[in-house]
Amino acid sequence: MDGYEKVGNFSPRTDLAIEISNALKLDRDDSYEIPGVEVKQKALEEGALAVTKVRILNTEGEKNMGKPIGDYITIESNGLKQNNPELHEKIISVLAEAIKSLLPEKKQDPLNILVIGLGNRFATPDTLGPKVANQVFVTRHMALKEPELLDEGVCYLSSFAPSVMGLTGIETAEVIRGVADNVKPDCIIAIDALAARSATRINTTIQITNTGISPGAGVGNKRKELNEATIGCKVIAVGVPTVVDTVTLVSDALNDLISHMLKQAEHSPFYDVLKDLTAEEHYQLIKESIYPEISDLFVTPKEIDEVMEYLSSIVANGINLAVHPGMTLKDINKYTY
Amino acid sequence: MDGYEKVGNFSPRTDLAIEISNALKLDRDDSYEIPGVEVKQKALEEGALAVTKVRILNTEGEKNMGKPIGDYITIESNGLKQNNPELHEKIISVLAEAIKSLLPEKKQDPLNILVIGLGNRFATPDTLGPKVANQVFVTRHMALKEPELLDEGVCYLSSFAPSVMGLTGIETAEVIRGVADNVKPDCIIAIDALAARSATRINTTIQITNTGISPGAGVGNKRKELNEATIGCKVIAVGVPTVVDTVTLVSDALNDLISHMLKQAEHSPFYDVLKDLTAEEHYQLIKESIYPEISDLFVTPKEIDEVMEYLSSIVANGINLAVHPGMTLKDINKYTY
Amino acid sequence: MDGYEKVGNFSPRTDLAIEISNALKLDRDDSYEIPGVEVKQKALEEGALAVTKVRILNTEGEKNMGKPIGDYITIESNGLKQNNPELHEKIISVLAEAIKSLLPEKKQDPLNILVIGLGNRFATPDTLGPKVANQVFVTRHMALKEPELLDEGVCYLSSFAPSVMGLTGIETAEVIRGVADNVKPDCIIAIDALAARSATRINTTIQITNTGISPGAGVGNKRKELNEATIGCKVIAVGVPTVVDTVTLVSDALNDLISHMLKQAEHSPFYDVLKDLTAEEHYQLIKESIYPEISDLFVTPKEIDEVMEYLSSIVANGINLAVHPGMTLKDINKYTY
Amino acid sequence: MDGYEKVGNFSPRTDLAIEISNALKLDRDDSYEIPGVEVKQKALEEGALAVTKVRILNTEGEKNMGKPIGDYITIESNGLKQNNPELHEKIISVLAEAIKSLLPEKKQDPLNILVIGLGNRFATPDTLGPKVANQVFVTRHMALKEPELLDEGVCYLSSFAPSVMGLTGIETAEVIRGVADNVKPDCIIAIDALAARSATRINTTIQITNTGISPGAGVGNKRKELNEATIGCKVIAVGVPTVVDTVTLVSDALNDLISHMLKQAEHSPFYDVLKDLTAEEHYQLIKESIYPEISDLFVTPKEIDEVMEYLSSIVANGINLAVHPGMTLKDINKYTY
Repeated sequence: MDGYEKVGNFSPRTDLAIEISNALKLDRDDSYEIPGVEVKQKALEEGALAVTKVRILNTEGEKNMGKPIGDYITIESNGLKQNNPELHEKIISVLAEAIKSLLPEKKQDPLNILVIGLGNRFATPDTLGPKVANQVFVTRHMALKEPELLDEGVCYLSSFAPSVMGLTGIETAEVIRGVADNVKPDCIIAIDALAARSATRINTTIQITNTGISPGAGVGNKRKELNEATIGCKVIAVGVPTVVDTVTLVSDALNDLISHMLKQAEHSPFYDVLKDLTAEEHYQLIKESIYPEISDLFVTPKEIDEVMEYLSSIVANGINLAVHPGMTLKDINKYTY
Repeated sequence: MDGYEKVGNFSPRTDLAIEISNALKLDRDDSYEIPGVEVKQKALEEGALAVTKVRILNTEGEKNMGKPIGDYITIESNGLKQNNPELHEKIISVLAEAIKSLLPEKKQDPLNILVIGLGNRFATPDTLGPKVANQVFVTRHMALKEPELLDEGVCYLSSFAPSVMGLTGIETAEVIRGVADNVKPDCIIAIDALAARSATRINTTIQITNTGISPGAGVGNKRKELNEATIGCKVIAVGVPTVVDTVTLVSDALNDLISHMLKQAEHSPFYDVLKDLTAEEHYQLIKESIYPEISDLFVTPKEIDEVMEYLSSIVANGINLAVHPGMTLKDINKYTY
Repeated sequence: MDGYEKVGNFSPRTDLAIEISNALKLDRDDSYEIPGVEVKQKALEEGALAVTKVRILNTEGEKNMGKPIGDYITIESNGLKQNNPELHEKIISVLAEAIKSLLPEKKQDPLNILVIGLGNRFATPDTLGPKVANQVFVTRHMALKEPELLDEGVCYLSSFAPSVMGLTGIETAEVIRGVADNVKPDCIIAIDALAARSATRINTTIQITNTGISPGAGVGNKRKELNEATIGCKVIAVGVPTVVDTVTLVSDALNDLISHMLKQAEHSPFYDVLKDLTAEEHYQLIKESIYPEISDLFVTPKEIDEVMEYLSSIVANGINLAVHPGMTLKDINKYTY
Repeated sequence: MDGYEKVGNFSPRTDLAIEISNALKLDRDDSYEIPGVEVKQKALEEGALAVTKVRILNTEGEKNMGKPIGDYITIESNGLKQNNPELHEKIISVLAEAIKSLLPEKKQDPLNILVIGLGNRFATPDTLGPKVANQVFVTRHMALKEPELLDEGVCYLSSFAPSVMGLTGIETAEVIRGVADNVKPDCIIAIDALAARSATRINTTIQITNTGISPGAGVGNKRKELNEATIGCKVIAVGVPTVVDTVTLVSDALNDLISHMLKQAEHSPFYDVLKDLTAEEHYQLIKESIYPEISDLFVTPKEIDEVMEYLSSIVANGINLAVHPGMTLKDINKYTY
């Protein structure tokens, strides 16, 4: 997670580039093009599935977005949180394409890929990473031991769940670095549960980026970043927002309510009072004075345990299809029940 | 759960009598006595623990409170959600006393008690009941088979988790009735996770009542009630609020924000606009127009998995101490790890 | 489970009719026909799957087999314990046919079926029943509430896991009776993990019978039987052996070793000593004098947790296909992930 | 695990030094002293608890024992697998003393200790390591961030569960090395579930050694050893046998049966035949010809899930007491529920 960055007027916690670009466009109009940023969108499956590619091209784009240069692909579908195996297969294919488009190229040998499942396996909305790490089709140990037994079209895949610093006492970045030093991957694919700004994004969005990760940063600490510059191999991050923090939710509800009231109050003295309440003021007001006690709470759907099963299966199989070029949608079920 | 009842001005979903009596007092002043209702409160452990007994005495009290005649004992302590074994022991003792005060009396034979653990074992905040059912010290089968082996001072205890209708296809009340017909208990003790109105109550409050249960009612359906009149034995309910629904949370936040603004806006034209916004209007506004999408979301702390371990251990041991008169705090650890 | 019955020479614990009929044939020769018993066998999928129907026709058959009159269908496949989704689909179809052949017939209305998942959800090899109860497609609550919404071709299905007496303090048969009194099913389908005699049967065999169940009997207590005569509706039992008890395993190993030695020792004085050691003597010797300490141990494969996922999915979907006549193999995945 | 070494006559798989020294003594008589090996034993708690220290002094001892020079402390108690909190407290104290006696000394600063929880968290009898890693009182992250907040008497503790190669695709030794390179501990404490030779040892024995570990070796592969020489810090291993492999069990049962028969057959021609059957012949006979199908099976008690809770709590708290010199038995419950 990236923590709180100041973007445009104000932005409470979001890990999603698409939420930022949408917010920036909302402040202007829909045809507005953010300088230094390229946004392409397409709808699939009769609207049940949308893919958006936000490309931050230069430092101007970085400044406008509050995020580093790179590609941010977003897959949106309410089907992610529903028991809909057919739509899930479509999402898996689209996800696999997105990951493939960010993988490094290698002339002859198979890619050596390390999957990192970030998160705390004991907090349900944070289990996405560990679950995916456990469901990808791991091959590296077989490749090393009996390379002749390994099918063509299968890469060297290892996977690992480094847990979280509160449970291990070790910086997660240190653990990853230690493992990567030994595995020496061509590419790391890191999976993490994210925080979204909008409750409608919970369990409906997958973001794939090639800009690296900073594990643990989202909970308030800015630790060592892991990206191509710092760890010497490409780092692809796959994230799904599974929670919204309660302060953000309440703050956004207020904003919406005030917008709603403003429309009705135009030309009244009330209007001036209301429009002076900026979003940031609400946020601070709520966080500090009104609801200090809710600042540790998170918002999730009741059926989160079930949805995590769908999400982890979709992300794991998207990775399987992307990295093992010889595998098909049919094959993957054989290896990941 | 009891669903939405209209109490005083307006009351969003709460299962706690204490939240209703507090709300009624808040509308007046602290010395106000609700007609037909008796409220007694005491603080223990230097304020770390509070016990409140709300007794609804007659139909007038019923009408004022929107809840049936009977006793509602509330134990409040932030220690419930903290890893604090010493305070937990105190809470267990207080809980045991509260349950004992509501148990039926029996002259000679040991009591025959059936513990019912309500809730869905696959949704973390709803697992309290099934976990407790699994942690009480079950004796009935031994008592029937080899009564001579059973210690004096141990009652006949059986326990059961009926799951939820969405998983079984059977009304929970039907399952309980079927089991009770065979076990023929003197008293049922039913454990359930509740919804609170205020986020500060999450995992900090235990309510013990003798007014029966209506399983499943809280999720919107009013099913058969289970109480002394309908099932022929006393029914004690032990509940802990583990979630707040998101609409209630946002609605309450608005109320608080408006109160806050009203204090600053006195004697301004703004004041009149604001004070006309009633709580109920907010609630409906939020529920229907602004945030239809959050109505399925619930608010819980991130560490809910861990807190459920404390809560279930405390409630199970409170029951163990209350029903097995020969057991001590020291004994209980031998049987419930 | 049926406990220890004396069959032919001697039979340590087995719940499988096929093990008894095979043992009886082994004592004679393969063409031997057990009086009062009909045995039909067919191989499918090029031998990857075998289906055997043992029908006990009369009291003579009962006496010879040590099991009640009725049908015992056995499906055998090593694929059950392997990650082989294609073979699993075949097994699901065959299992559905077997269950269908034992279901009661009903002219107009849909069948009202109650699935009972026997076993202890906290002991891995015993979790089959509770897992299946949780994975069948439950419809009864929808049928009662909004019958018009229910598809044609869907029966009234409810499901229930009564846990075990050691955890509830209640005879499992009592719990089932209580629930059945309220649900009033046309047929009960009970799922249970069984004990096999031979280690090769662990997680490779499904037995389907229409002779009822006696829950808890297998662990040494003969409790009330549940069958058409005692509970007033058909009772189909679906069982999978997931353990072998250690004494049986050692005893069988000795028998095999002695057979092996006998073949080599013919015409020697040793022969006479060896052939006098009957199987039953070994069993008692091992159980009482040599290995009292192993009598509580069970034999399971290391990967039991994973295999239970396959088994429960196969059995649940076999039931889904059998009872919901409008469902296809493709549909079932939508409802049971 | 150490795999199969040839010791004395013959030794099937055991990880326990005490089983080897006992076997060597059994071959002679009880007063026999194994050259190069020192054995000291004491009984505690009126025999409910025994502590044995086997010290392998030199290469002669190494040769006799088939294990490297070093200390092997064994704690034996049936209480380990029983719900007996009082005896568990005694075992925790004795375990803490044993670990302390092997810890490195450090003059001024607190020790920097890395706990490694070996094993597969998805196979119940193999979960000891991961569970313990999760229950020790982790402090290193606090010590690094806010050293002034850390109590005196608390060491720098981090903990980590590297999973198993079959799930990660990475040699477990590589993962540990990677993490240790970053944490730079003074001492590693590695926890693992072991295989015992005798079924009576299952869940009744803890072995503590200072001779290092070779993760994964027990399943047949001799991988890189991790000990003071190869990783540059002390490596203490804490192991508990939780399974016996089935072939060993059957083989031992045969040996015992033959001993039993030999006593009765003395002076008969049978005697000579029997005494020629060596233990190793049985083992091979069983493994290769008679029971190839059981070679993947393991023997565990039915209540293994519950026993793993006791074991992990005992081992985690033994470590807590040993490494945090300021902690008492009373404190540890505050941090590890």
